[in-house]
Amino acid sequence: MTASSRSFTVNKIDGDSANYVDDEVAVEEPLEIRLGYKAPGGRTSSSVSITMRTPGGDAELAVGFLYSESIIRNASDIMKVEHTGPAAPDTGNHNIVRVDLASDVNVDLGRLQRHFYTTSSCGVCGKSALDALRVTGAEPLADDQTIFSRETLTAMPGALRAQQRTFDQTGGLHAAAAFDSQGEILVVHEDVGRHNAVDKVIGTLLARDLLPASELGLMVSGRASFELMQKILVAGIPLLAAVSAPSSLAVQLANEFNVSLVGFLRGDTFNIYSGGERIS
Amino acid sequence: MTASSRSFTVNKIDGDSANYVDDEVAVEEPLEIRLGYKAPGGRTSSSVSITMRTPGGDAELAVGFLYSESIIRNASDIMKVEHTGPAAPDTGNHNIVRVDLASDVNVDLGRLQRHFYTTSSCGVCGKSALDALRVTGAEPLADDQTIFSRETLTAMPGALRAQQRTFDQTGGLHAAAAFDSQGEILVVHEDVGRHNAVDKVIGTLLARDLLPASELGLMVSGRASFELMQKILVAGIPLLAAVSAPSSLAVQLANEFNVSLVGFLRGDTFNIYSGGERIS
Repeated sequence: MTASSRSFTVNKIDGDSANYVDDEVAVEEPLEIRLGYKAPGGRTSSSVSITMRTPGGDAELAVGFLYSESIIRNASDIMKVEHTGPAAPDTGNHNIVRVDLASDVNVDLGRLQRHFYTTSSCGVCGKSALDALRVTGAEPLADDQTIFSRETLTAMPGALRAQQRTFDQTGGLHAAAAFDSQGEILVVHEDVGRHNAVDKVIGTLLARDLLPASELGLMVSGRASFELMQKILVAGIPLLAAVSAPSSLAVQLANEFNVSLVGFLRGDTFNIYSGGERIS
Repeated sequence: MTASSRSFTVNKIDGDSANYVDDEVAVEEPLEIRLGYKAPGGRTSSSVSITMRTPGGDAELAVGFLYSESIIRNASDIMKVEHTGPAAPDTGNHNIVRVDLASDVNVDLGRLQRHFYTTSSCGVCGKSALDALRVTGAEPLADDQTIFSRETLTAMPGALRAQQRTFDQTGGLHAAAAFDSQGEILVVHEDVGRHNAVDKVIGTLLARDLLPASELGLMVSGRASFELMQKILVAGIPLLAAVSAPSSLAVQLANEFNVSLVGFLRGDTFNIYSGGERIS
C-alpha cells in the first residue's frame, strides 16, 4: 500500500478563530533509481538518480526518467522493474526502484554525465541551450495531421482536475496528463515535482508502447519550462498545454522544434505561443 | 541592463475570438556558477552549478547557493563576485557568474559531492533524510523570542504581491521575501525557479550581514518543500510561510528542527503545521 498523502494535526487559523484539525499533506520522499545492466565484466548496477517525489507510480517514474534522458528507447529495453531495499519505517513506502535492462542494451552512463556538460555549455548563451538539445538527439517534430480543437483544449483543465485525487485532499501536487485529439485522457499522474509527474506519464506511455506519441498532447497543471519542453520533445509529443505561464526558453524551444505551446489555459481562454496550425 | 522578461507575439483565444497580441514572458536562461579559490597548487577555479534561472540578482543567487550548500559561512569569505564570459547574443544577459573566495577559505568541493551522497542515503527511508540534514550541519533552531502576529502573517501575501514586478507582467515567476516581526519586507526576489528565488534572498541577507537570521521569517509564493526547508534551516530563519501546501517532509523537518511552518496563507486564513509558539 503506497501512501501518497499523510495526515498531520494543524492549527487552522480563520480570522479570530483557531482550531486543531487533521490535514492531509502530500507525501514527499526521496526515490533512488538504480540501473542494472550488462557491462564488459558481467552484469552490474549503478545508482543514476535521486529525486524527491510523491510515492506511487515509481516504476513509471523511473522508466520515464530513463527514457527522457535517452538511456532507453523502447519498452523492450527493460527486463524488470521492481522496488528493492527495506520500506521506510514511518510511512511503509519503498524508496528504491531498480530497473534491469535487457542484455542487448548498450548503456552509456556517460550520457547522463554528458547531459550535465552539454547543459553546462548553455552557460554561455541562450543559443547554445538550443544547440545542447540537438546534441542530445532531439529533432524538430514533423508537420503532422493531429489537430486539437479549441473545445478540446478548454475542457482539459476541468478533466485533469477531476482526476487529481490526491490534490483534492492535499492541494499540494502537480499533475500531468496525456490526452488525444478527442479530449480523452489516456494517462494522468500527480507528484510534488512537476518534472516527476511528466516522467510518470512518459513512463506509462512507453509501457503501453505509445511512444513516440505524435498524436497526443500533454497537459500540465503548472508552468511550462525548458525542462518540460525537453521531455516532451524526446517523447515526440507535438502539443504542450499549461494552466500557467511558459518561460522564454520554453517558447524559443517550441518555435525551434515545431511544438505547439499553449499557456494560461483557463476557462474559455488561452494563449498560443507557437504551432497554432495544430489548433482548430 | 538585465532582461527578466521578454515579449513574444501570441494568439490570444477568448471564446470565439482570436487576436495576435504581444505577451511578456519571464526569461529562463541557464546560469553557471564558477568558484575561484586557493588550492594547494595555487589559485584555481571550478564550475560548481548550472541552474535554469531568471536573470537579475545573479550575484545574490550564486552567493546564496554557496551559503545554502555550506561552501561559505560569512560575507567575508567572498573576495569578489562578477559576471564573466560573453553576453548571450539574443538577450544580452550574462550567464556565467564567478565567485572568488578569500585566500583563507578552505574549500571542500567534495562537500557538494557528499551532499549528493548523503541525499542518496535518503533513498532508504524518510528517517535518514532527516539524518542527512544533521550530517550537513543543520541543527534545531533555538527557542527564540521572535513572535509574528496573525495580522503580520495575513498581510504578507499582499505585501509580497505588491513587490512582484515581473510577475505582474508575466504571471510566470515564483517569489520569496524575508520579513521581520513588524511585517516589513527586507528583501524580495523573483525567479522561474522557487529554490533560486530563496537562494537570491539568502545571498542578499548574507551580503547585508544578516545571517543567521533568527528574527526574520521567509515568505514564498508557492509550496513548502524539503529543499526550501533545508535552505532556511542553514540560514537560521525560524519561520517559513507559504501561500500553498507544504509537503510531508517539510512538515517533518519543521517539527524536528523547531521551525515554524505556515501553509495555505490566503486572506484571513492559514494553517500552522509546526512551531505555533512563535505566532501570537
